[in-house]
Amino acid sequence: MRAMEHALPVTRAENFAAWYQAVVAQGDLAEESGVRGCMIIRPWGYGIWQRMQELLDRRFRESGHENCYFPLFIPLSFIAKESEHVEGFAKEMAVVTHHRLKVIDGALQPDPDARLEEPLIVRPTSETVIGAAFQRWIRSHRDLPLLLNQWANVVRWEMRPRLFLRTSEFLWQEGHTAHATAREALDETLRMLEIYRTFAEDCLAMPVVAGEKPPHERFPGAESTFAIEAMMQDGKALQAGTAHYLGTNFAKAQNIRYQTEQGELAFAHTTSWGVSTRLVGGVVMTHGDDDGLRLPPIVAPRQIVLVPILRDRPEDDQIVAYCESLAEQLRATTAFGEPVRALADRKGARAVDKRWAWIKCGVPVICEIGARDVAAGAVTLLRRDRLRKAERLNFATLSREELLSGAPRLLADIQSALHDEAQARLQANIRADIASLDGLADYFKGAEDEQAFRGWALVPWARPEGEALAAVEQQLKALKLTIRVAPLGQPPLATARCIFSGAAAREMVLVGRTY
Amino acid sequence: MRAMEHALPVTRAENFAAWYQAVVAQGDLAEESGVRGCMIIRPWGYGIWQRMQELLDRRFRESGHENCYFPLFIPLSFIAKESEHVEGFAKEMAVVTHHRLKVIDGALQPDPDARLEEPLIVRPTSETVIGAAFQRWIRSHRDLPLLLNQWANVVRWEMRPRLFLRTSEFLWQEGHTAHATAREALDETLRMLEIYRTFAEDCLAMPVVAGEKPPHERFPGAESTFAIEAMMQDGKALQAGTAHYLGTNFAKAQNIRYQTEQGELAFAHTTSWGVSTRLVGGVVMTHGDDDGLRLPPIVAPRQIVLVPILRDRPEDDQIVAYCESLAEQLRATTAFGEPVRALADRKGARAVDKRWAWIKCGVPVICEIGARDVAAGAVTLLRRDRLRKAERLNFATLSREELLSGAPRLLADIQSALHDEAQARLQANIRADIASLDGLADYFKGAEDEQAFRGWALVPWARPEGEALAAVEQQLKALKLTIRVAPLGQPPLATARCIFSGAAAREMVLVGRTY
Repeated sequence: MRAMEHALPVTRAENFAAWYQAVVAQGDLAEESGVRGCMIIRPWGYGIWQRMQELLDRRFRESGHENCYFPLFIPLSFIAKESEHVEGFAKEMAVVTHHRLKVIDGALQPDPDARLEEPLIVRPTSETVIGAAFQRWIRSHRDLPLLLNQWANVVRWEMRPRLFLRTSEFLWQEGHTAHATAREALDETLRMLEIYRTFAEDCLAMPVVAGEKPPHERFPGAESTFAIEAMMQDGKALQAGTAHYLGTNFAKAQNIRYQTEQGELAFAHTTSWGVSTRLVGGVVMTHGDDDGLRLPPIVAPRQIVLVPILRDRPEDDQIVAYCESLAEQLRATTAFGEPVRALADRKGARAVDKRWAWIKCGVPVICEIGARDVAAGAVTLLRRDRLRKAERLNFATLSREELLSGAPRLLADIQSALHDEAQARLQANIRADIASLDGLADYFKGAEDEQAFRGWALVPWARPEGEALAAVEQQLKALKLTIRVAPLGQPPLATARCIFSGAAAREMVLVGRTY
Repeated sequence: MRAMEHALPVTRAENFAAWYQAVVAQGDLAEESGVRGCMIIRPWGYGIWQRMQELLDRRFRESGHENCYFPLFIPLSFIAKESEHVEGFAKEMAVVTHHRLKVIDGALQPDPDARLEEPLIVRPTSETVIGAAFQRWIRSHRDLPLLLNQWANVVRWEMRPRLFLRTSEFLWQEGHTAHATAREALDETLRMLEIYRTFAEDCLAMPVVAGEKPPHERFPGAESTFAIEAMMQDGKALQAGTAHYLGTNFAKAQNIRYQTEQGELAFAHTTSWGVSTRLVGGVVMTHGDDDGLRLPPIVAPRQIVLVPILRDRPEDDQIVAYCESLAEQLRATTAFGEPVRALADRKGARAVDKRWAWIKCGVPVICEIGARDVAAGAVTLLRRDRLRKAERLNFATLSREELLSGAPRLLADIQSALHDEAQARLQANIRADIASLDGLADYFKGAEDEQAFRGWALVPWARPEGEALAAVEQQLKALKLTIRVAPLGQPPLATARCIFSGAAAREMVLVGRTY
């Protein structure tokens, strides 16, 4: 492959959706399984998710949460009860009806004698079973706050699945907490949102806007839903994490009550919050380029890969030994407070193929080491975030000592360079000067190329409710737009007018396209 | 509670099964969920499992394995294909037949219009889907060995569930590997068995016997199955981990072939190996006593808990501050190569109740700290493994400095004391002098109290096959016994006779009761 060709068969500009699939496939992240909407997460993709888990889990524990595990199966009656209390309750769920297979007429099939009395639902989320446990576990104000989290797989049947972004089965964490007061529960909700925001910014190098969802985008049954929204490289918004303040709605439906200090019975205030393997897709669409994935070092399963250039000659052993000892020394150094994740890649393939494979996987630093490097005590280094320069791959030569002493700084540089690049894109692409619905339509529909990059618009609105809100939803739907969030911490609005109704605006909301 | 009463309502001697349930319930480990056979793993129980995961995952990675994730659902056709190739294939599985619910006649039920064309099986294990992926991924000898592992939930319908020991849904890891030769695959199988053995001994303080299962106890489709077996405090054997050498059986069924260095196509040799949340049950039944759980420090979510003794007096603040600063200092020290997991328990409950709660949870070291301790710069310490002495709780008083400097050694002492106690029980309770089936029957049935502790017998056998083996199985079944394993590394047998057939014995096998 010549250096100036792109490593992927399709570029972002040509076809963003096809490019995304190419990164996921060629970066060894995931693949279709043959079961509709269920993906196989390959080792490199799972490694990224496992890094995310480690980093988040530490933050959850440090903020006082404990992990637990609730069953995969939920009795239909639990779901039925919840659906009575919750409007807009989604019903696309996997239903287990039998507990045994049997060969009948030569074919293996569900055994009619093993039909379940009550069907079981594969959890789409665990609100209802965890609520039932809260009802049993919470007696007194001394039991509050109850701060739980669970790492689990969940299933929501998807008709139009996309790897990581929308899959029928996905991996996630769901936090569930109960509190004595509304204030404490809302504080918890915002605290978790802030943990998601800083995790996205600091670990994923993915700048986000944190805000509150409009009423029609709330989690069914929630009093308020908050989210972090990230801008992908096609300008669309990815909802990257949500936190819900549930008020006493679920507590009333499930009778979660506690005895106050004064001896009275009161309903608990609950919250829930989650992020999922969708974040892996977010990292791809935030940082990937036309050569494949680029990974922020903090979540990269391998941060520095050493590729020996071997030629079936006697000096090969020396090159391999040089790589192995260098990798070992790198692993003994620390970056971001953890040992550097360095690998000497001894797989039996051509060095140039291995280079391009690691480029597509997004390893932050790739070092190629040949006989000349060994003789000079040097490494030939590629920074994945600055892969090309003018007509060539952007190789740099460092001494072994420079790499060893400079690795933590180098990785930190890459981490912040990726963040800065994404941050600049986000900041440059939020239009805040659109003052009417026509202006919004012109901006998103007007140009010749409807696929062109648009970004988001920040527009004033009057926070309508009921039918007025439904009308706004429809107006936006016609433009393929949705309200993402009302950003938190926005300054008070003085005189702006709602672009939908012309009434006095109450806040600014972000509008954009999504997946 | 008076010190000499036991903390649990039932002792091991009175009713071992009821005692087990009491430890699990009162140690906050797990509870029934309302869905038959599916448990809720409570934070303390999940914390133990998460420790096991961390420790095993590190060992898997260090031995070159990578984590991945395969779908929860397996198409019925995959299972049907496997069942054709595999005799003794279990069919107790959860079957998904619909993907949507609908309100019909006022009741939520599976939507008849959303019946799946092909039913989906909730994975009982992932052999079949991982094999299909191996078939796609493996092309050349350069792709081998392929060393994968997955942490996942699996479901096998259980008619007689018991928390942790036998549940319909359980959490586990399943390793799946492919190799070029039988030798390499068998080496891998034994390497993983050895990892399980040392993990059980070193981390769980649970001595085990590693060995090979007799043919009728093999995993369906395996060439050989190896296991580690642990002796519980009722003398029964718990199969605590298994590793299977699958030969080319699965490779042939799934066409997993690779091109050799010579350019020929050959079937890969595969292995699989797993441990599950059952290990938590094993820790309970190995180390628990009549006051509840006793946890080996290496897997204890909290190793040292400081309980302030508060009396609603002004000095309370000082006591709490003393506890907090001591916990922080302890967390800055290292035991077993990791920061000490210390907690100052500030929950609003009576100190004596907190003490007993932590005793039942099995925290290795509990320190009670009152005004006098603060004044003296001391702590009052209870070692969970030496809780009682003569008529009293076995309190010791240490200076704060002694605790800080001595904590790593103290925890190491507790870890090895628990191991030694279990090791002594195992060694003292394997009868190796039984030379006949009658002798075996006398030993296990003869005494008046059939529930009395028996342990295991190590008996010579001729390694029968076919009908002769089935006969042995029946003979043992009548005595409620099973062959656990033929221990690895046993010396060659000179002249012994098989206790079943009288033929020349070929090896010794362990016989015992199980769950």
